[in-house]
Amino acid sequence: MFRTIYLDHNATTPLHPAIRAKLPEWAEFWGNPSSIHWAGRGPKSLYRDSKQKIASLLGVQPLELIFTSGGSESNNLALKGLCEKPVNGRDQIVISAVEHPSLRKTAEALIGRGFRVDVIGVNRDGELDIDGLQALLSEKTFLVSVMLANNETGHLMPVNDVSRRAHAVGAWVHCDAVQALGKIPLHLPDLGADLVSLSAHKFYSLKGSGVLYARRGLNLKSLIDGGAQERGRRAGTENLLSIASFGWVCGLADEILPQALRLRELRDHMEARVLSEISGVKVNGPLGSRLPNTSSMILNGVDGETLLMNLDVRGFAVSTGAACSSGSPEPSPVLLAMGLTREEAQSSLRVSLGWGTTREEIDLFVDELKNVVHRLRGFKHGECFAYGV
Amino acid sequence: MFRTIYLDHNATTPLHPAIRAKLPEWAEFWGNPSSIHWAGRGPKSLYRDSKQKIASLLGVQPLELIFTSGGSESNNLALKGLCEKPVNGRDQIVISAVEHPSLRKTAEALIGRGFRVDVIGVNRDGELDIDGLQALLSEKTFLVSVMLANNETGHLMPVNDVSRRAHAVGAWVHCDAVQALGKIPLHLPDLGADLVSLSAHKFYSLKGSGVLYARRGLNLKSLIDGGAQERGRRAGTENLLSIASFGWVCGLADEILPQALRLRELRDHMEARVLSEISGVKVNGPLGSRLPNTSSMILNGVDGETLLMNLDVRGFAVSTGAACSSGSPEPSPVLLAMGLTREEAQSSLRVSLGWGTTREEIDLFVDELKNVVHRLRGFKHGECFAYGV
Repeated sequence: MFRTIYLDHNATTPLHPAIRAKLPEWAEFWGNPSSIHWAGRGPKSLYRDSKQKIASLLGVQPLELIFTSGGSESNNLALKGLCEKPVNGRDQIVISAVEHPSLRKTAEALIGRGFRVDVIGVNRDGELDIDGLQALLSEKTFLVSVMLANNETGHLMPVNDVSRRAHAVGAWVHCDAVQALGKIPLHLPDLGADLVSLSAHKFYSLKGSGVLYARRGLNLKSLIDGGAQERGRRAGTENLLSIASFGWVCGLADEILPQALRLRELRDHMEARVLSEISGVKVNGPLGSRLPNTSSMILNGVDGETLLMNLDVRGFAVSTGAACSSGSPEPSPVLLAMGLTREEAQSSLRVSLGWGTTREEIDLFVDELKNVVHRLRGFKHGECFAYGV
Repeated sequence: MFRTIYLDHNATTPLHPAIRAKLPEWAEFWGNPSSIHWAGRGPKSLYRDSKQKIASLLGVQPLELIFTSGGSESNNLALKGLCEKPVNGRDQIVISAVEHPSLRKTAEALIGRGFRVDVIGVNRDGELDIDGLQALLSEKTFLVSVMLANNETGHLMPVNDVSRRAHAVGAWVHCDAVQALGKIPLHLPDLGADLVSLSAHKFYSLKGSGVLYARRGLNLKSLIDGGAQERGRRAGTENLLSIASFGWVCGLADEILPQALRLRELRDHMEARVLSEISGVKVNGPLGSRLPNTSSMILNGVDGETLLMNLDVRGFAVSTGAACSSGSPEPSPVLLAMGLTREEAQSSLRVSLGWGTTREEIDLFVDELKNVVHRLRGFKHGECFAYGV
């Protein structure tokens, strides 16, 4: 049998085995939660329980959570729902230079509503230019949106500090925390943000649901108009199967910290081996302030996409910093924003561990990485030897 | 064991037993379809197969279909994506008076973008005032949106005629066909519409996915900005489990017509018995031009919500025309638009059959309906005797 080792948990996570086992049970709740007869009551109850579990994990009230179809919709709902038009001369939206496309493009779409978008840079380690942010803030600032954990480097942003500074000038704060959920303990009040986006499928749950936390009293315009679901803030029949899985996994709150500590050790072990056994390797980002499961590296003289494909045929799933699914790889905007050259960005590799990752898998991976990098460096740089070389 | 009989298929449908059986298999495709390594390829392939099957059933090209989270999002994407702002003086949107809230409220939201919304009435049978529509159409018309089948009465609208007339003045046409899919053979080119909304969970599939058909070449602005999914027209990781179920059920195209004929006979049998065995009953809508599975009736002197609750405790799931989930029932806007009085609208009952419905179930239902109506009419009208009376 072909052995596969999955080290791309920041792209998506495998379904938790217990969730897979519970699918037949939850599939019985096919009724419409809005129906008031027997077919709707079970689903409605499962829906409420799930939301309660998610709220408990996050330390917020269930009514402050809006179910969406996932992280991208949560980011869109947050920004488009809050920023209808500039109010009292506040027309500035501030985002970081390393936001996810669903945040960055949504912010750019708001220019059409009369807003301007200012971007805060990051340094070579991915650290936010907090002085630059402070200099941008004024009574013109409407919203500041800074992610909690970067999807490529795992870098953790000082969201609480951002919230404090933004609130001091009367601005709203949104935080895309999609990559942080399940990887580190996450108590939303600690962030100080008014809006927080989260997704189920980055946390061992079914795709197709996410939540947007919206602080009580915050007035949000619906992105999807229609029925009265989510108190009129998001219409559409609820995706109960995904919601149930999301709620269930949030019941595993106690496992998050032990797993984080275990994965940090594994990740550090991997990086130590790679740095000592492969020459010309650099780890991106500050070592101390990262997600414990994520490693972003630059391997000099190795094309990331070629590396990915060579590892893939050997059963290892990893990612490049670059979005290279189309065959014409563009260097990652995140790495470029950190000041890497195009060549460096195209030599990057992202390894992201998960709850199922073992030390044996990590050692097999480093062994294979050594072989592949060695062989690729034997070829002329830039040529693309894909499968079977 | 408590016997349950589900006659509310227009609210949602039970999961097809074969889909329930396939859930464990599909759950193995947990990878991100955007990943280019092994974990993404199976999901990507399942995604493509599913879209192909849906396209085949509908008689369109896969590239003309955009996956959404469901019917409400499809309606929102259609209207908000097409109607950015009035163009060349075209600022009129025309909808019917009996559209679903996700269509009606979305149209109303476009008033904020400089559009005006005109509403075409229906007559006592729910038939569209086609002369009224014709009189409204002009070179000012931007979009006409008329549903194919009404969710409450099952009434079928002459969408092809609407499309022809709207296109004659250069307007776009959208059709909410959510209630028609699976209930009657549906070949989208026959509708002549430029945009058509559909939902998976009204057709024995998992909740959380739907499609918007957008005619090739039509320029649609994304509702959810971000990643490149759906060719940039809808960002967000795909809800593959629901999509796979949707594709699978579309492979049952050959069962739609035989089921439609069978359900029409059952429905007609039910109505014949009700009309002959219970006094003071009227069927809403024209008998000939309805969904074969749907019956909307008025039972004089019976409060619809009380009736529903009395049937519920006996295991029958039906619906009123009214949205009564909050305890303060408002009469159905659809029935009021048809010219029914508030009292009539509050005495309405919707029965919607499905592929699993049997003649025995229908006969048990009519027997129970007779008993309950008889008993309720023995009480003073307007009092609400709910459970246990």
